[in-house]
Amino acid sequence: MSDRSLLVVVLAAGEGTRMKSRLPKVLHKVAGRTMLNHVLAATRAAGATRTAVVVGPGREDVAAEATRIVPDAQVFVQTERLGTAHAVLAARAALEQGADDVLVLYADTPLVRPETLARLRAPLAEGAAVAALGFEPEDPTGYGRLVTSGDELVAIREEKDATAPEKAVRFCNAGLMALSGKDALSILDRIGNANSKGEYYLTDAVEIARADGRSAVAAKADVDEVAGVNSRIQLAEAEAILQKRLRLSAMAEGVTLIAPETVFFSADTVLGRDVIVEPNVVFGPGVTVGDDVVIHAFCHLEGAQLAPGVSIGPYARLRPGTRLDEGVRIGNFVETKAAHIESGAKVNHLSYVGDAHVGAGANLGAGTITCNYDGFFKYRTEIGAGAFIGVNSALVAPVTIGAGAYVGTGAVITSDVPEDALAIARSRQVVKEGWAKDFRAARADAKKKG
Amino acid sequence: MSDRSLLVVVLAAGEGTRMKSRLPKVLHKVAGRTMLNHVLAATRAAGATRTAVVVGPGREDVAAEATRIVPDAQVFVQTERLGTAHAVLAARAALEQGADDVLVLYADTPLVRPETLARLRAPLAEGAAVAALGFEPEDPTGYGRLVTSGDELVAIREEKDATAPEKAVRFCNAGLMALSGKDALSILDRIGNANSKGEYYLTDAVEIARADGRSAVAAKADVDEVAGVNSRIQLAEAEAILQKRLRLSAMAEGVTLIAPETVFFSADTVLGRDVIVEPNVVFGPGVTVGDDVVIHAFCHLEGAQLAPGVSIGPYARLRPGTRLDEGVRIGNFVETKAAHIESGAKVNHLSYVGDAHVGAGANLGAGTITCNYDGFFKYRTEIGAGAFIGVNSALVAPVTIGAGAYVGTGAVITSDVPEDALAIARSRQVVKEGWAKDFRAARADAKKKG
Amino acid sequence: MSDRSLLVVVLAAGEGTRMKSRLPKVLHKVAGRTMLNHVLAATRAAGATRTAVVVGPGREDVAAEATRIVPDAQVFVQTERLGTAHAVLAARAALEQGADDVLVLYADTPLVRPETLARLRAPLAEGAAVAALGFEPEDPTGYGRLVTSGDELVAIREEKDATAPEKAVRFCNAGLMALSGKDALSILDRIGNANSKGEYYLTDAVEIARADGRSAVAAKADVDEVAGVNSRIQLAEAEAILQKRLRLSAMAEGVTLIAPETVFFSADTVLGRDVIVEPNVVFGPGVTVGDDVVIHAFCHLEGAQLAPGVSIGPYARLRPGTRLDEGVRIGNFVETKAAHIESGAKVNHLSYVGDAHVGAGANLGAGTITCNYDGFFKYRTEIGAGAFIGVNSALVAPVTIGAGAYVGTGAVITSDVPEDALAIARSRQVVKEGWAKDFRAARADAKKKG
Repeated sequence: MSDRSLLVVVLAAGEGTRMKSRLPKVLHKVAGRTMLNHVLAATRAAGATRTAVVVGPGREDVAAEATRIVPDAQVFVQTERLGTAHAVLAARAALEQGADDVLVLYADTPLVRPETLARLRAPLAEGAAVAALGFEPEDPTGYGRLVTSGDELVAIREEKDATAPEKAVRFCNAGLMALSGKDALSILDRIGNANSKGEYYLTDAVEIARADGRSAVAAKADVDEVAGVNSRIQLAEAEAILQKRLRLSAMAEGVTLIAPETVFFSADTVLGRDVIVEPNVVFGPGVTVGDDVVIHAFCHLEGAQLAPGVSIGPYARLRPGTRLDEGVRIGNFVETKAAHIESGAKVNHLSYVGDAHVGAGANLGAGTITCNYDGFFKYRTEIGAGAFIGVNSALVAPVTIGAGAYVGTGAVITSDVPEDALAIARSRQVVKEGWAKDFRAARADAKKKG
Repeated sequence: MSDRSLLVVVLAAGEGTRMKSRLPKVLHKVAGRTMLNHVLAATRAAGATRTAVVVGPGREDVAAEATRIVPDAQVFVQTERLGTAHAVLAARAALEQGADDVLVLYADTPLVRPETLARLRAPLAEGAAVAALGFEPEDPTGYGRLVTSGDELVAIREEKDATAPEKAVRFCNAGLMALSGKDALSILDRIGNANSKGEYYLTDAVEIARADGRSAVAAKADVDEVAGVNSRIQLAEAEAILQKRLRLSAMAEGVTLIAPETVFFSADTVLGRDVIVEPNVVFGPGVTVGDDVVIHAFCHLEGAQLAPGVSIGPYARLRPGTRLDEGVRIGNFVETKAAHIESGAKVNHLSYVGDAHVGAGANLGAGTITCNYDGFFKYRTEIGAGAFIGVNSALVAPVTIGAGAYVGTGAVITSDVPEDALAIARSRQVVKEGWAKDFRAARADAKKKG
Repeated sequence: MSDRSLLVVVLAAGEGTRMKSRLPKVLHKVAGRTMLNHVLAATRAAGATRTAVVVGPGREDVAAEATRIVPDAQVFVQTERLGTAHAVLAARAALEQGADDVLVLYADTPLVRPETLARLRAPLAEGAAVAALGFEPEDPTGYGRLVTSGDELVAIREEKDATAPEKAVRFCNAGLMALSGKDALSILDRIGNANSKGEYYLTDAVEIARADGRSAVAAKADVDEVAGVNSRIQLAEAEAILQKRLRLSAMAEGVTLIAPETVFFSADTVLGRDVIVEPNVVFGPGVTVGDDVVIHAFCHLEGAQLAPGVSIGPYARLRPGTRLDEGVRIGNFVETKAAHIESGAKVNHLSYVGDAHVGAGANLGAGTITCNYDGFFKYRTEIGAGAFIGVNSALVAPVTIGAGAYVGTGAVITSDVPEDALAIARSRQVVKEGWAKDFRAARADAKKKG
């Protein structure tokens, strides 16, 4: 990575009216992360030393997300919308502090890769004053064109201002730009607004730099990287592109996805080798999966760590704070939350294990439920190694089931159970002969009478 | 909408043998509605004033679906299969009653849009006698061609009868036709069967009208609209086209679909703004969702109303008669049916709430089940505002839990619980020290011997 | 089918390092079957009379899978990797035993169809010595070309050795080859390794046969059939191709798949007519479904037999040994295993029915659980016809509920219940007036104090 200092300026002030949303556009999520977060993560990976985020007026929520991701980010408010160069200059104070390189990005372009940012920035180290990012869309209609001459970028031409030969250019402006830190302010301050919309366009930086006798160049990105998100449909398209990346990357590293198109990852999902993921699995943020884990169909995971050899589902829902040690088996219609389940333990059917610690080799029968909430507080359940919890048991926390203990079927356990003990809590079975026959006759009669 | 009267004749007598089904073809469903229903809904939206449906002999089921959708529809039986014009004439009585415009549609073309029907019909108001609907398939092979001359439709030519220049025409016959009401019978009655199959073809109407010196014209439809369904594969294709329409429309109106291709709507699904739908959600008929609702992965909804701010799933199944007020939270592995759950109440895990009313702010613990059925009758459960139902409780209906009451864990509640009271029904916990150790030894021994 | 004897030689010694897996490549699964199994199944359907499988050193697991599928398969070990002809000669002993025809296949080409193998082999009966299988990829770059002259196959030319006209050939080598049994060894033994890699290439068989004055020919396969699997991405692609085949075949036979792309079959899934499968259903191996069955969304089936008129799901999980008789209804969040459920019985919600027999017309309430496991042994539950099991009941096996018996809500049943009797096992409900109010006040107070 470069040892040059890098100031990134992230423009996050767009209104996003086409999203038809109360939520600001850049806080919409792709693969479980806000778009702003994706862009900030890419700049961090590309070596950002300082971060400036430009937000619209009153957008404390955007500012808060920015500083949540990059705690020392400087947030600037663009009070008027007078064009992209004007937006960058909202961060004037950050630009005045100086940096070797300045990178301008848009928070609604969440798919850009760190390596692309590095490529965009690299020419600055070799003396270029400006570097613009281009791409080749299938249909260039409507995009600004990157007009080049040899290695030099001559201008970024809006389509309406382009000559016929310029219109024939397929290399289009992605919007992202790198500027030499020592030249950035001087260039930006000379950008004018003598155009039909009366706006200050960042794209003018190219011609200003060249008028100074400085070099301007272009780097190239994949079409997929620079797709801007302006509507929910484009949001879904960005999600699809990112999911495809994540799926291909998982398979390349030795994960079997039986039906890749039905598996949804978060940007931070970590998967070991020889993991098998059946169709229809959703990974929320914060999931780490060890080698040889089998994730059956219809599972939903979030904030969960799965050690090697674990098997879950189908229909397992692992919520945040779930930690499954080696060989643990979670079956169908089972929910776990803030639960550490030690090696080889089994929770196979219709259970809720929350705020709990389950010892190695314990077996929780179908319908086992930890009662962790009394309407006011949450309490913990402790189940010892090798314990056997009978079907339909309710463990009223705080409570401890000792190692090797048995809990009888249908018990409500309110007091601790010692190691190796049996706890039962059920009524004796009473049989009333012939009752059902009479009941049926009476009910059938009632039904007939209506 | 036009103020001209409109008779629609829907041809629904096709046998559909390629469906390999006991169910008549037009009763197969797309997006939760029969194909016949889709076509009737489109004609109603296009301003149908009278409706005639032509069915095959003995097809009371098709007739019943027609009159279920359009109660005053006239149903006619086509006793012999002698061609499309013959089928339309099965509705002679309806044609004789007269109408300004007549529109002929096929019940196995479920994707046609009302605005397309309006466009098809419009020329009649300006004096045209016949208007045919055309489309441009990728490969026109096999389709009849709409032979035009300027704005006039000269003929609809079957491919086998077409000259080379006619075969080069890419504008093909979709089958749907509009006829001037005052000319329709006269034209139809003159259609002959002097062709290789000996059938009466509706397409001949064009040349008969022109021979009368009347005008015939063509309107154009999207390929997607006029796809006829003759097999299960085409049924799935029609479903895919309609689902795509519904998804794009939802996103355009401000709904986030993280993975649109995994969300299945019914034709009547209504969604508010800033609704978020995670992957793998199925909407059956009759669902209305308010603003800011979050529908987590793997939910299944049918006949349910969700007020703003509700959150459901993952794995929530809302059945008909479910009404969730503002801010209600339905969690995983929860089924609701004929249940009105008031604002802020929570049913978070592994529960069945049926034939019930749950007051505001109530909390139903994991494993809460309403016992609404005794094998003969169904009964209602009433849970008051702010009540707290302990884990694994069974509420035996008819029963009322008062506002603010507590039900202890594992209780079977058979009598009403007063407001602010506690109801418990469980056995005392008994502990047998060392029992589990002995049990294990005995069982292990048996296993060794066994 | 031909009455000529057929020896198939399946090459299964590839290392598959690009799979990044501890599991040998050919044991990875497609549509629920190992790739080796798919290839062996195709050869069996194509009339294999003897089977030789060539495995890598130490690959007992591959050998075991081969003999599991074809019990009398001969397994040979290829100790060194000296090319495809060398691999075939590892099965020299099988070749020496003789056969009319010899067919050489690769175990990582799981999609080849029996009818294609028959077509490949057919020319041998008419005197050809060698027949190679070709296909036409979109981009032939990198493939060996099948150089033909009229009906004759002149040579299989590696791309690097090809002349410009040969490179223009789009007909490429799929690798599979048929050899005349009486010539096979003689040809194979004359294949040399005078090439850059020093390997023995099976493709040289063509030119050797022709030098003998014998005929060599080519048969053609679809691109989809001959896709080799070398990575997890290609494994997913093969799965997608096979799933598409299975879906189209199901629909062609009269099954409605509302969203075919979301339904996953096993190679052996059997479906009746007018079966409806909603979105998101996974069929594991061993499932047979009768006519008019409805499988709602989010079901997971494996090793299950469903009689006509059954309805399951949404969210039903049928595990091996499930047998559902006519009209049975399995609802949501229900798991069955080794359970025979007789006609008309219902298990509608949140239940586990394992190692059980349920009589006709029985009704198992929500939360019914069979306790079939005590940590050491499994026991059976017998539920008689017409029995009614109350909500949240636990049936502790071994136990029998008599025909027509009632089990009360919340019961733990440990002893047999006679026919027509009622069994109850629950505590009396006790109410403590005002308790909840006091409790809330105390808890709220505690919460305030923190």
